[in-house]
Amino acid sequence: MHIMESVPAMKQYVKDNRRLGKKIGFVPTMGALHEGHLTLMRQGKKDCDVVIASIFVNPVQFGPNEDFDRYPRDLQGDSEKAARAGVDAIFHPSAREMYPEGYATYVNVEGMTEKLCGSSRPGHFRGVTTVVLKLLNIVQPDKAYFGQKDAQQALVLKRMAQDLNLNAAIEIVPIVRENDGLALSSRNMYLSPQERQAALILYRSLCRAEKLVAGGEYDSKAIREAVLAVLEQEPLAELDYAEIYHYPSLQDMERLEDKALLALAVRIGKTRLIDNIILEVSQC
Amino acid sequence: MHIMESVPAMKQYVKDNRRLGKKIGFVPTMGALHEGHLTLMRQGKKDCDVVIASIFVNPVQFGPNEDFDRYPRDLQGDSEKAARAGVDAIFHPSAREMYPEGYATYVNVEGMTEKLCGSSRPGHFRGVTTVVLKLLNIVQPDKAYFGQKDAQQALVLKRMAQDLNLNAAIEIVPIVRENDGLALSSRNMYLSPQERQAALILYRSLCRAEKLVAGGEYDSKAIREAVLAVLEQEPLAELDYAEIYHYPSLQDMERLEDKALLALAVRIGKTRLIDNIILEVSQC
Repeated sequence: MHIMESVPAMKQYVKDNRRLGKKIGFVPTMGALHEGHLTLMRQGKKDCDVVIASIFVNPVQFGPNEDFDRYPRDLQGDSEKAARAGVDAIFHPSAREMYPEGYATYVNVEGMTEKLCGSSRPGHFRGVTTVVLKLLNIVQPDKAYFGQKDAQQALVLKRMAQDLNLNAAIEIVPIVRENDGLALSSRNMYLSPQERQAALILYRSLCRAEKLVAGGEYDSKAIREAVLAVLEQEPLAELDYAEIYHYPSLQDMERLEDKALLALAVRIGKTRLIDNIILEVSQC
Repeated sequence: MHIMESVPAMKQYVKDNRRLGKKIGFVPTMGALHEGHLTLMRQGKKDCDVVIASIFVNPVQFGPNEDFDRYPRDLQGDSEKAARAGVDAIFHPSAREMYPEGYATYVNVEGMTEKLCGSSRPGHFRGVTTVVLKLLNIVQPDKAYFGQKDAQQALVLKRMAQDLNLNAAIEIVPIVRENDGLALSSRNMYLSPQERQAALILYRSLCRAEKLVAGGEYDSKAIREAVLAVLEQEPLAELDYAEIYHYPSLQDMERLEDKALLALAVRIGKTRLIDNIILEVSQC
């Protein structure tokens, strides 16, 4: 396993592999790797010759009162997991390497970053798009993999890659869940046993919505009300948002047509969790 | 001469040349080519195997009351000039090709875009950085050439390329002037004969500053006052700005040290002209 800490070293590794005609897959992460990340890496290995993962807790995407300082970091454990998932090289830069003195450039996807997590975490997506653009420029992958768990992020990055004429294809990989339905997240490790149990309310409310849609309920407002009613049953859960938008445009929709994204952000104790489901209108 | 109008066609041309190991030079322009542009192209041909020029009047960098509609367009004449200067291919996309329906991504270099032309043309640099980033992603050049005439633009783009880890080197080429000192600009063709004569006041005021510095005057304010005094002698000239900043950081400086940029924007009739000079402190 190669671990590169500098941009020139990472670029050289990419150049050497390109010269050999290798197809490059890329999985950007903040570390604290779980089965969700490993699924992205295995998918990359299936599609490409060489898989590069980045492990970088990006300061620019955290708000001032968020969990940047306590975000879990374990390079040793992460690189062992990544190696077992087929990753060939890890890019693990310092914040100074990514944002040197005088750094001033930021990219923004307007409109679709202003709702959902964009409205509860101002500046978050500007940090995500900026760091991912930099990483894509450094790694120059054929394909870059992102989890559906961060649905809005994946759509924003797809939009950015298309708008900026990048060569990398943005691949969105389905959510990986625990057996009881909890979506995997590095932040799940903040949860106490009692909170871990309470956190199941997110998936339970998504399932309620899916059943309603399967039964023919296409009214966004009615579906949202039903989701809120389920979430209210859990006293440890505090709602940040529960919203339904057209998928993948994230435009408002009163009545479901085609596909819709139902996205949740819920605080369980001090931990903010997100989850989502794509609701599909039956074509029969 | 190849003229490409679509992004995929341009990318294919680049890919084919890359495969042959060709070094690619790139000169982005808005057309209306003059000797300044041609100098960039000839420099590109000297340094690289293949030179690509883009001709695209970028709507996003024009303000609502600026000259987007009347900006001179002459693809036929421009491509003949470019061919004679050694250009191998021209990228000439439509606005729709560059900004398709739903386009939402913009890049911004913060701080250094807020002064000089950034303060008199709000949003201008956001348009410039966005289109140049797109063009650099499409053309993937080894070197991209920009004129010192647009000094702030060149510095902003250099900052962007460095910050976003682009592979392209940004080359800044000296200003080309008419025999009487007027800096070449596509906008010079808006000038009446009388205005053309009046426009010489820009270069004359820059020369006054250069002489002062050669004589040991290093006080920014005193130099600026002298420049304003020269500009005031021309009744057709209306000042937009005349400012001195550290070069290349564009930071404020009270006393010249090392290098300074003296940059002017002056309206002659309805035409806004810019010009600049780098003032160097003698090391003796």
